[in-house]
Amino acid sequence: MKLATAYYPDYHPQEEWSRDFRLMREAGIECIRIAEFAWAKMEPEEGVYDWGWLDDSIRAAEAHGLAVMLCTPTATPPVWLTERYPDILPVGKNGRTIAHGARQQRCYSSDPYKERSLRIVEEMGKRYGGDPAVIGWQIDNEFGGETKYDYGEVSKKGFQAYLEAEFGDICALNERWGTAFWSQTYQRFDQIQLPAPIDCDVMMWPHPSLELAFRRFSSKVMTDFHRSQVEMLRRYTKAPITTNAFMFNWGDNVDWSKLFDCSDVVGIDIYSSDEEEIAFYADACRSLLDRPFWVMEYGSGSAALPAEMDLMRARGCEWFSLFKFRVFPWGQEQEVAHGALLGVTGHPRPGYDAVKSWAAVRDVSAAPPQAEASGVGVYYDFECAWAYQISKADPVDYFKYVHRTVYGSAYSRDASVKVLFEPGAIAGIRTLLLPLQILHDDALERALIDFVKGGGHLVATSDLFRRNRDNVYLSAVPAIFSEVLGWSDGRFIDDVPELETSADPVLADRACGLGRMTVVRRDLDREGWAALTREGVRA
Amino acid sequence: MKLATAYYPDYHPQEEWSRDFRLMREAGIECIRIAEFAWAKMEPEEGVYDWGWLDDSIRAAEAHGLAVMLCTPTATPPVWLTERYPDILPVGKNGRTIAHGARQQRCYSSDPYKERSLRIVEEMGKRYGGDPAVIGWQIDNEFGGETKYDYGEVSKKGFQAYLEAEFGDICALNERWGTAFWSQTYQRFDQIQLPAPIDCDVMMWPHPSLELAFRRFSSKVMTDFHRSQVEMLRRYTKAPITTNAFMFNWGDNVDWSKLFDCSDVVGIDIYSSDEEEIAFYADACRSLLDRPFWVMEYGSGSAALPAEMDLMRARGCEWFSLFKFRVFPWGQEQEVAHGALLGVTGHPRPGYDAVKSWAAVRDVSAAPPQAEASGVGVYYDFECAWAYQISKADPVDYFKYVHRTVYGSAYSRDASVKVLFEPGAIAGIRTLLLPLQILHDDALERALIDFVKGGGHLVATSDLFRRNRDNVYLSAVPAIFSEVLGWSDGRFIDDVPELETSADPVLADRACGLGRMTVVRRDLDREGWAALTREGVRA
Amino acid sequence: MKLATAYYPDYHPQEEWSRDFRLMREAGIECIRIAEFAWAKMEPEEGVYDWGWLDDSIRAAEAHGLAVMLCTPTATPPVWLTERYPDILPVGKNGRTIAHGARQQRCYSSDPYKERSLRIVEEMGKRYGGDPAVIGWQIDNEFGGETKYDYGEVSKKGFQAYLEAEFGDICALNERWGTAFWSQTYQRFDQIQLPAPIDCDVMMWPHPSLELAFRRFSSKVMTDFHRSQVEMLRRYTKAPITTNAFMFNWGDNVDWSKLFDCSDVVGIDIYSSDEEEIAFYADACRSLLDRPFWVMEYGSGSAALPAEMDLMRARGCEWFSLFKFRVFPWGQEQEVAHGALLGVTGHPRPGYDAVKSWAAVRDVSAAPPQAEASGVGVYYDFECAWAYQISKADPVDYFKYVHRTVYGSAYSRDASVKVLFEPGAIAGIRTLLLPLQILHDDALERALIDFVKGGGHLVATSDLFRRNRDNVYLSAVPAIFSEVLGWSDGRFIDDVPELETSADPVLADRACGLGRMTVVRRDLDREGWAALTREGVRA
Repeated sequence: MKLATAYYPDYHPQEEWSRDFRLMREAGIECIRIAEFAWAKMEPEEGVYDWGWLDDSIRAAEAHGLAVMLCTPTATPPVWLTERYPDILPVGKNGRTIAHGARQQRCYSSDPYKERSLRIVEEMGKRYGGDPAVIGWQIDNEFGGETKYDYGEVSKKGFQAYLEAEFGDICALNERWGTAFWSQTYQRFDQIQLPAPIDCDVMMWPHPSLELAFRRFSSKVMTDFHRSQVEMLRRYTKAPITTNAFMFNWGDNVDWSKLFDCSDVVGIDIYSSDEEEIAFYADACRSLLDRPFWVMEYGSGSAALPAEMDLMRARGCEWFSLFKFRVFPWGQEQEVAHGALLGVTGHPRPGYDAVKSWAAVRDVSAAPPQAEASGVGVYYDFECAWAYQISKADPVDYFKYVHRTVYGSAYSRDASVKVLFEPGAIAGIRTLLLPLQILHDDALERALIDFVKGGGHLVATSDLFRRNRDNVYLSAVPAIFSEVLGWSDGRFIDDVPELETSADPVLADRACGLGRMTVVRRDLDREGWAALTREGVRA
Repeated sequence: MKLATAYYPDYHPQEEWSRDFRLMREAGIECIRIAEFAWAKMEPEEGVYDWGWLDDSIRAAEAHGLAVMLCTPTATPPVWLTERYPDILPVGKNGRTIAHGARQQRCYSSDPYKERSLRIVEEMGKRYGGDPAVIGWQIDNEFGGETKYDYGEVSKKGFQAYLEAEFGDICALNERWGTAFWSQTYQRFDQIQLPAPIDCDVMMWPHPSLELAFRRFSSKVMTDFHRSQVEMLRRYTKAPITTNAFMFNWGDNVDWSKLFDCSDVVGIDIYSSDEEEIAFYADACRSLLDRPFWVMEYGSGSAALPAEMDLMRARGCEWFSLFKFRVFPWGQEQEVAHGALLGVTGHPRPGYDAVKSWAAVRDVSAAPPQAEASGVGVYYDFECAWAYQISKADPVDYFKYVHRTVYGSAYSRDASVKVLFEPGAIAGIRTLLLPLQILHDDALERALIDFVKGGGHLVATSDLFRRNRDNVYLSAVPAIFSEVLGWSDGRFIDDVPELETSADPVLADRACGLGRMTVVRRDLDREGWAALTREGVRA
Repeated sequence: MKLATAYYPDYHPQEEWSRDFRLMREAGIECIRIAEFAWAKMEPEEGVYDWGWLDDSIRAAEAHGLAVMLCTPTATPPVWLTERYPDILPVGKNGRTIAHGARQQRCYSSDPYKERSLRIVEEMGKRYGGDPAVIGWQIDNEFGGETKYDYGEVSKKGFQAYLEAEFGDICALNERWGTAFWSQTYQRFDQIQLPAPIDCDVMMWPHPSLELAFRRFSSKVMTDFHRSQVEMLRRYTKAPITTNAFMFNWGDNVDWSKLFDCSDVVGIDIYSSDEEEIAFYADACRSLLDRPFWVMEYGSGSAALPAEMDLMRARGCEWFSLFKFRVFPWGQEQEVAHGALLGVTGHPRPGYDAVKSWAAVRDVSAAPPQAEASGVGVYYDFECAWAYQISKADPVDYFKYVHRTVYGSAYSRDASVKVLFEPGAIAGIRTLLLPLQILHDDALERALIDFVKGGGHLVATSDLFRRNRDNVYLSAVPAIFSEVLGWSDGRFIDDVPELETSADPVLADRACGLGRMTVVRRDLDREGWAALTREGVRA
């Protein structure tokens, strides 16, 4: 695992770079990640570029033996851009436009924004795509971090077009969503409103199919925008390209399986001091593309930094980039010291010493020891998380349950767990944990049947496949129940009154083909899951 | 007590009606309530009507021996209507327009909305007013449930016109409201703003007289709109007409005494598993028109359903309509099973069996045994509730106190309590409990004096008649205090320092004429009220 | 200490004044404060004045031996003014315009508002400036009480002009604020937005330098407006002029040192029953202009009124004005009785009797006994309070800490503490407590060095001078640390790891010149501060 750090040459006087680079090298740091939010610095006016400072930074780093990861700066459109095209500014759920003055003030459905973004990306690609010092690229920063949903007019038109493309004609949408309910029937796609909160005195909320479609759309506009940048850069560079996703407690609104399907490597930002949490993201990131991953930002103030670095290394981290080398004395993230390797006066902080000591005794260039694979997989479906977040009658904290209860039950420091995001990833798993998979689709159902028949042990919760991907409850039990479980009751398992009140957490359990399928109550606790994973179920 | 159920033939395929109707009949259900939200189905485009599905539903129900209650669909204006007349959409207290996509997105002061509403009601009346299968009508659904107060421009103009009609000239309003306070003096009615929350950094709120007037207006536009529908239907039908009011914890913003004064029968929706709460609404509904009432919706998932049905029957429920026969797999009220008699797969739920068993052993056509009348009455004044809700210096939860403390103190399973909403309803009461009657009016004061002199026992709280109906404190003690209580101090009872700090909850008590009047502290608890009701006061 | 009371002749019938004035005189009250919110009464239409009622009030008071304090009514612009110039209405942080219907609905940056305000002030000055009955003036009422920050367009233009005046050119602002962070770089001042809350899904907030500048601006527009009224009145009167500031728990958004620098006397409104809190404001008010102060409003419902009046008298209160003589039966502050000397029926309340008894045994005209000066000073810097309120990474409740922990540690009933608001006020202090002085400026640093060298004992917290007045962290330790403390480490004291985790609350302590400087942890508790104040530090 090689060490890198976030650095902002655009924020600091050029005469200080040299000292900073030297201190980095002394601590074993081999790479700087730069230019992340520097659009206004690169392009101070539309079409006027200033590359001098960036050229200088790269060359100075190179001179100190540091490699460079370059970021595209599209998370921070300059004021000249949003001033000229005010429609670029997104609108929050309370109907207020988000103005210049922070970051991510951009509408992903805005043509001027997308065009200007690709233009600066292309300019960067042209200039630095073949630069040997540039060993990797980060697209944008934390897509969907701040503004997850955009309730503005441009976004609305984009959403309506998206629905039209998905459904073809409005009757199909009416039918599939059940808009007859409460006379919500639409005549045309352009009558559909965004699911902003409704300002009523008492309970009232948008249609759950509309909500889910809007979440899917909101993820898609980001992953499409990301893909367009990747494709642009590919024309100019052969270096690996990634982006930096964030932890799900900050938001699970971007579907990782769609985000990273065009990436060379998975990148993530991690801020946590919880071992099990860190391990979860490491396992998820490694599983996603089935190869080592990059940590683009890691909080350098963590007290247990060396142990956490060892954990990340053993679980497949290739580049470990600390955030951040120097503190920001001004701006929204201003602070004195704690989140940086150097304090506000430029003196090393304890984190600096910890990193330096760590690097001194590891052979960073050697392939790290890998954690053993446990054979257990946990399935993670972003759309199920969204469906449960939307739900008013039956809300469940999907992320917390899947992570803390299910993944946690299978966690050990010494063995990795596979985190699956798509049916195609099931290969190689012995025990597949499938909690809260409320949304059905044919491909997943087929893959699960094959998995069990082929010898796997599938453990699902009793809400399995209750709704379709339109977020509508199914009126008939899917085939897997009869075909694998031998379930012949016309009702879903947890609609049977005797089972609803049963004390046994295992509601159904049956061998099928070479494997087995178990259905457990949706509230099975961590110890219950651990027992299933450890020992299999009752023979 | 006869059984009915809410049903939505517009939501389900016609081929399933027959099974559903058969299952209803087997459970003892004799009537379906339909068409509640079906405006878009009846009138898919302006002036284009589709009655086929409704004709078919009614005839199919009839063929299965089911009667029909028809609802007017005006709670859900179709998208073509709000699109053509955007002013129909109400505005929430935060200034945001409520868009198509839920229900009750209508401004009661909008002429286009009222006209189109009466048109569809008239069309329904013409077509089904004489239909022998249609045995009753429900106007709209839960008036004021979601959007209780409309802060839009159309509503504002309506409110200004209402005030002008009430006050005649602006000087009278200035005088009665005391607008000299803080230079709030108006020159014209059209300068008066709606009392939306004020977006200040610290305490600031609208004028309390304005607030009370706006609450009165907001109730009136609904009860006026309701009355207009009743009058329209009367031209075409002789069947009983009602509407479905809701429980006060959902909102007590519509004055029932005004809402039902044009109804043939009181209708209510009840969702509760609290015996005392259910009984309160039964007593209130029966008292209101002094005749048996209808429950238009009752939550069919209640665990104690048979006992609750017995309670309702004994307290005068005539039709008991379960909500709902089938679940909604989509839409804002989507769910799996628990709130319906049939689950999502069409199989009976436990509630279905409970209803069926209940019906099997009751003679539903016989007059039910009635609970004995206790002779105790509890007075309920919506405007007093509003005055206390508005109050910043002295807020009190009127509903909770009147219901839980006062009504609760008088509740027994075997005897009914009268709930009075108007002075004219006092006849027949022996003990009248009058809690939190902070608002004075001449008619009520006169009725109370007569009541005591004629032999009744009046128990009021110490805030009695402190303000007038403009929500302004009186500066002189009303006559009832001297005439009935012999109170000669120029101050109100609870302004006398010795009484303010007295430990005795009874502040005044005196025989007068053939009866007695007692004034108790405003914080008298349930046991204290029970003692007064049970034993009378100290001789 | 002489007694006054707030009175509103404009609210009450003229025939009642005589009784009210008689009752005042019997209680020892010598002055009425009037006309506070009476703009609409004085000027019912633009340019049309009605002085009759005010002439009559003053003459009637005079006839009863009562003096008069006159208030300018500018906190309540009449409806004719805001209707003609809607831009006068301020906008709340949620983007909603604050309408007529409460008070303080005015934008301090609005020219029409400021012009019309000065016009009515001038008219009052002309008419009553030389009136012998008028012994003092109150400007406006509680500046910044309700609307502390105005997010409207007029305010924005004012703020941009203010910044331009402060910074001269936009490059200087970019440089000092570090707007390179996140590409926030501005090209022109008119691109700068107001720091309204950002309607994002997760954490995002305005730039901290922008926030602090906006707070400074928001205070300045009020103090400038105040000053303009004072200057106008000075042309016509020789009577003392003040305004009524409010307690900091209601808001510390107006910088008192700027507010009162043009006043003859400090005025304050106090609503509290906490002895230490009352004493704090008395000490602060007396310290500010170094002379006796006026209480313009004091809650007359306080249970311990006589003892509190003694406390205020001993600490330098000159006029003590009770709020209020009669209750408001209507309007936003309507109530029955408790906050007034007379109840709603016009009968005296217990507070009336308490005041009367108090006055009977004090010689109100004699100079009161003054509390001994303790020699301890507490420094209070409004901008430091704002900086901590703004902070996301490191928020601290400045007011609570300075008042409860630091001032509280030095409080005794018998000795007054000086509260300092400016470097120039340090003279005469022996021990200067300087908590949470995070913002540096040269004048203060220089004064502190001189103070210590001259023999004072300075006790500061470890956050001393960490940021500059742009709210940006300093990258080098200021000279006072080396010059006075002999601190030679290049880091700030609390960035030294050993000190960060030290158990000793005293981080540095050194004699210098004739005095001493001590730096304590920022979380030192009240007992810790008391020990420092009482005993000095370790010798």
